[in-house]
Amino acid sequence: MIAYVIGLDFGTDSVRAVLVDASNGRELAQSVFTYPRWQAGLHCHPARNQFRQHPLDYIEGLETTIRAVLAASPEVDAADVRGIAVDTTGSTPVAVNADGVPLGLTPAFADNPNGHFVLWKDHTAVAEADEINQKARTWAETHPDEGDYTRFEGGIYSSEWFWAKIMHIVRTDEAVAQAAHSWMEHCDYIPLLLTGSSLADLKRSRCAAGHKALWHEGWNGLPSEAFLTYLDPKLAGLRDRLFSDTYTADQSTGTLSAEWATRLGLTTDTVVAVGTFDAHAGGIGGQIEPYSMVKVMGTSTCDMVVAPTADVADTLVRGICGQVDGSIVPGMLGLEAGQSAFGDLLAWFRRVLEWPLRLVDSSGTLSDEQKTALRQDIASRLMGELSTAAEAVDPELSSVLALDWVNGRRTPDANQTLKGAITGLNMGTGAPEIFRALVEAICFGSRTIVERFEGEGIPIRQVIGLGGVAKKSAFVMQTLADVLNRPIKIATSEQAPALGAAMYAAVAAGIHPDVPTAMQAMGSGFDATYTPIPANADRYERLFQRYKALGQFVEQNGK
Amino acid sequence: MIAYVIGLDFGTDSVRAVLVDASNGRELAQSVFTYPRWQAGLHCHPARNQFRQHPLDYIEGLETTIRAVLAASPEVDAADVRGIAVDTTGSTPVAVNADGVPLGLTPAFADNPNGHFVLWKDHTAVAEADEINQKARTWAETHPDEGDYTRFEGGIYSSEWFWAKIMHIVRTDEAVAQAAHSWMEHCDYIPLLLTGSSLADLKRSRCAAGHKALWHEGWNGLPSEAFLTYLDPKLAGLRDRLFSDTYTADQSTGTLSAEWATRLGLTTDTVVAVGTFDAHAGGIGGQIEPYSMVKVMGTSTCDMVVAPTADVADTLVRGICGQVDGSIVPGMLGLEAGQSAFGDLLAWFRRVLEWPLRLVDSSGTLSDEQKTALRQDIASRLMGELSTAAEAVDPELSSVLALDWVNGRRTPDANQTLKGAITGLNMGTGAPEIFRALVEAICFGSRTIVERFEGEGIPIRQVIGLGGVAKKSAFVMQTLADVLNRPIKIATSEQAPALGAAMYAAVAAGIHPDVPTAMQAMGSGFDATYTPIPANADRYERLFQRYKALGQFVEQNGK
Repeated sequence: MIAYVIGLDFGTDSVRAVLVDASNGRELAQSVFTYPRWQAGLHCHPARNQFRQHPLDYIEGLETTIRAVLAASPEVDAADVRGIAVDTTGSTPVAVNADGVPLGLTPAFADNPNGHFVLWKDHTAVAEADEINQKARTWAETHPDEGDYTRFEGGIYSSEWFWAKIMHIVRTDEAVAQAAHSWMEHCDYIPLLLTGSSLADLKRSRCAAGHKALWHEGWNGLPSEAFLTYLDPKLAGLRDRLFSDTYTADQSTGTLSAEWATRLGLTTDTVVAVGTFDAHAGGIGGQIEPYSMVKVMGTSTCDMVVAPTADVADTLVRGICGQVDGSIVPGMLGLEAGQSAFGDLLAWFRRVLEWPLRLVDSSGTLSDEQKTALRQDIASRLMGELSTAAEAVDPELSSVLALDWVNGRRTPDANQTLKGAITGLNMGTGAPEIFRALVEAICFGSRTIVERFEGEGIPIRQVIGLGGVAKKSAFVMQTLADVLNRPIKIATSEQAPALGAAMYAAVAAGIHPDVPTAMQAMGSGFDATYTPIPANADRYERLFQRYKALGQFVEQNGK
Repeated sequence: MIAYVIGLDFGTDSVRAVLVDASNGRELAQSVFTYPRWQAGLHCHPARNQFRQHPLDYIEGLETTIRAVLAASPEVDAADVRGIAVDTTGSTPVAVNADGVPLGLTPAFADNPNGHFVLWKDHTAVAEADEINQKARTWAETHPDEGDYTRFEGGIYSSEWFWAKIMHIVRTDEAVAQAAHSWMEHCDYIPLLLTGSSLADLKRSRCAAGHKALWHEGWNGLPSEAFLTYLDPKLAGLRDRLFSDTYTADQSTGTLSAEWATRLGLTTDTVVAVGTFDAHAGGIGGQIEPYSMVKVMGTSTCDMVVAPTADVADTLVRGICGQVDGSIVPGMLGLEAGQSAFGDLLAWFRRVLEWPLRLVDSSGTLSDEQKTALRQDIASRLMGELSTAAEAVDPELSSVLALDWVNGRRTPDANQTLKGAITGLNMGTGAPEIFRALVEAICFGSRTIVERFEGEGIPIRQVIGLGGVAKKSAFVMQTLADVLNRPIKIATSEQAPALGAAMYAAVAAGIHPDVPTAMQAMGSGFDATYTPIPANADRYERLFQRYKALGQFVEQNGK
C-alpha cells in the first residue's frame, strides 16, 4: 500500500517539513522556511530576555514548506498523504480568544508582544518561577493530600515554562489577562488550526501538558483550582478553560479542515496527529529504546529517556525537566533532561576570541573589500582550526578544567543563576587548551545527567546522539564517549525530529500499529559509533571528580 | 663640590647605566645594552624552565653602557665620577673557580650551561627546593638550638634561590661540582670584577645573602656546616669557601682596578659599592620610608617594605621572601614580597586572544606584505584597545572574577604549582570583561600581600608605585588604589633601580652621610597620585572576599 506522511518540525528560527514514505521512512523531499518577523526581531527585547514569536511566522511557514515538499514530489498523489504530525519548541504558550485565535492575530493586540507566542527561551518570568517553587512547597505542607505539584518536574519549576509565563503576563498586562479565554502551547495551536477543531474538542498534547503545565493523570489533570488561585487570583477559573484530558502524539486529533486541505493541496482525509515537542519527536526519530538516552545536541541539549511504565511506577527522578507517562513512547514513562549550553559554550569562546578581529576594520592597511573578505574567511575557518588544534593538545600537559554553566544549569537541579568557570590556567595555556577544556566541560555536564538518572534508579544502557554537534564534530563525540565511558551511536538522519513526527503521523493515520513498529519500519539507523578509549576514560574519571568539586564550589559561592 | 655617580641596573634582558649628579639626582645620561647571547637563547631550554646567562653578556654590557654615558657627557671630568653601584636580578648565582672566574669563562666549561649564571627565573630546582623545605622542618625538630633555617625567608624556600640551584647543579653535574671553588651572586660578581678583589676580600651583599642564601647575623652567618651537609653531602666544606660577613649596599668594597679604570675611562679612585638586588635598589630610587610599600610593577612585582629594626625586632612575617636587616636601608629591616604575575597575566590573555590572528597568514586574500603589516598593526594596538574597552565595562553588569596565579604564587606563601582561574562567565562575557577581571585579580593579589604584612604586625602606611605598569597604565593603577583602598604615589623616575643604585654609590663614596640623606637629596619625587574612589572601594571590598574564597578552593583542590 502506498502511503506518505509529513513531519513538521518547528524550531527556534525556522520550520522544516519532510515528506516521507511511511513504509520505509525514505525521505522524498524536505523544505525549510525561516521566520521573517523573528529574524527582524519583532516583539523581542534581548536585553530583557524577552523573546516572542508571531503566529503568522508559523502559519506562513506551515503552508510554504508543505506546498514545497509536495511540489518537489510530483509522483506523490495528494490522496496518498495520509497523515501530518507537528513538533514544536516548548514551553511556547500563547493567549487565545474563545475561538482559539491567538490574541496577536486580532487587531487590538497585533502590536502587543504579550499577545504573541512566548518562546521557550523567554526569561521574563524568573520571579514568577521562584514564587511557584516557594508556593508549591508551602502548599504541600498545608495540603498533604495534594502534595508538591512540582514533584513530577524534578522538583524545580522553570521560568521557561507555561504557568510562570502566564502568571507574568496576567500580572503585568491587564488587557491580555481580560482577553485571554485560554492559553495554548505552540504544538497544540497548529493542530487546532489545521483541523478547524473547537478549543473544547482539540486533543491537547500529553507531552506539553505533563512536562510544562504540571498536568498529571493521578491528579485528575492540572493542579487543583485552589492551588492555581493560590499562585495568583488572576488564574482563578482558567483551569476549566484549559483542558482536563491529554493525548499522546500517536493519536489523531482529527483531519484537515476543508480550508487547510485546499491551502495545502491535500485532502480532508489527511489525519492530523496530536502535537508534541521537538526533542521528544527527536527521541522517536533517533529510534529510542527503553533505558536509552537520546541526546539532541546543538546549542543546548535535550536528553530523552524512556522506561516501561510498569518498571518505574514508583520512581521519582529529582532535578530533571519532568517525567510523563507517554510523552515520548506511549506506554512508557518519558523523562526529559538537558544542558543549557552545549555548542553554545564553544560558540561563546569563539566570540571571545574574535574580539581582536575588530581591529582589522580600523586598520589603515587594507581596502574595505579586503577587510570584509578577510574577516569572513577567518570567521569561516576559526571553529574548525581551533577544534583541530584542541584535539592535538596533549592532555597530560594541560591542566585546564572548565565548568560549562555560561547559560546557567538546566539539569540536574535547574539553576539559571549559575555561571561558567575556567581553572588550571598557566603561562602555557593557549586558546586550544581552553577550547579543549570547554569540550570536556560540556561532556562532564552530560555525565552529571547520566549519573543523576542512574542514581535515581533509571539505568542508562546506551547513548544515541542527534543534532548538529553530533553530526559535525567527531572530536566532541569521541570526548563524550570517553567521558561517559560508554559508546555513542549517531543517528543517520540529519532531521530526526521531523522524521520522528512523521513516524507519529504514520501511527495516528493507522499505517503502523504503534510507535515501536513505526520506528522499526521507518528508522534511518545509525551511521557512526564512538567507542570509549580506555586510557582516556581513566583520565576523565579522575578529572570528573575535580569538575564536580569545582561545580560545588561555584554553587556554594554564588555567581 | 662637583660629584657624579653611576648606577648600573642589570635586568633580565638588558643592563642600563645612568650617570647622575650626586648633589641633586639629576640624570646626565643613560645607556642600555641588550644581552646578545641571551637574546639568541644560548644555554636556555624554556620547556625545561632552564634559563642561563653568559658572563660576557654582563661584562660587555657593563663596559659599553658606562663608556656610552661618559661619552654622552663630555662636560664630566672622569675624576669627578666618584662612585659606581650595581644592582642585579637575583637569586642569579654562578659557580666560580678559586680566582673568582665564572666556570663558563674557562675553556672546559664554555659550552656547559651549568658553568653560567643561573637566572632568577630558572625553575630547574623545584625538587631541591621541596627537599630543603622538608629537611629544614626535620632539622628544626632534632636541632631546636638551630631551629628552622627558613624562618627569616617567610618559612618557605624557593626553587628560584641560591641553595636550591646549587644543590641541583652539584647533583646533576659532577664536573661543575668538582670545579666550583665557590658560588657567587651576579650582584657580587660585578664588584669583584671591577675592583679586582680576591674572593676572600670581597664584601658580599647583605641583601643577596639574607634574602636568598639563608644568611642571618644571629646564626653567625650561613646555616651550620652540619645542616648544609644534611641537605647534601656534596655541599660539605662549601660554607667556608663562601662568606661569613655581609655588607649593606651603602658601603665600599674597594675602588676600580687599574684594568677596569682604563677600560671604562675612569680613575682608580672611583669607589665601587657593595652589590644589591634590583628591586631593593628600586625601593631606594622610589624614596622608600618606614612602613611604606614600594611596588615595582612590571611582568611580576617586587614589593619592598622597610621598618626600623628596633621596632620590629621580634616580628617574623610568614610567607614572604625574607626579612633582612639592612637589605634596603641600613639600620632598618628590609622585607621583600612579590607577585609572580602582574603585567604577565595581562600579556598571557593577550597571547590567548592573538591565536585567531594566525589565520591571517593562511588567508589567501592578502599579499605577504599586507599580512605582515596587518599583524604588526593589530599587535601594536591590541593591549591598548582592550584596556580601553575593559575600563568602559560596567562592573555592576559583569560577574567575572579571576585568580592571578598563572605563574604560581610568589607571596604570600610561595607555591609555584598553583594555577590561575576565571569564574563568573556567562554568555554576555567578552574579552573586555575578562581583561577587566584580570586587572582586578592582580590588584587583589597585591592586597593579599598588604594584608599579610599588616596581619603579621607590619602596618603599611602608604604605597609607592614604580616600573613599567605603574608608569604606563592609569587604569591598572586606579584599580589598585580602589582595591587597596589607599592612595598610590607614582615615582617620577622611569629608572628607579638605577637611580637607587646611584644613591647607594653616593653614600659609599662619602658624598652623602647615609641613605636617607641621599634619597632626600637625589630623589626625583612623585608625578602622580591615584586616590581610591569610595564606591569602587566598597564594591572591591566585597569582591575581594570572593577572590579569597576562590583562592582557597584552588589551593585545596590542587592544580
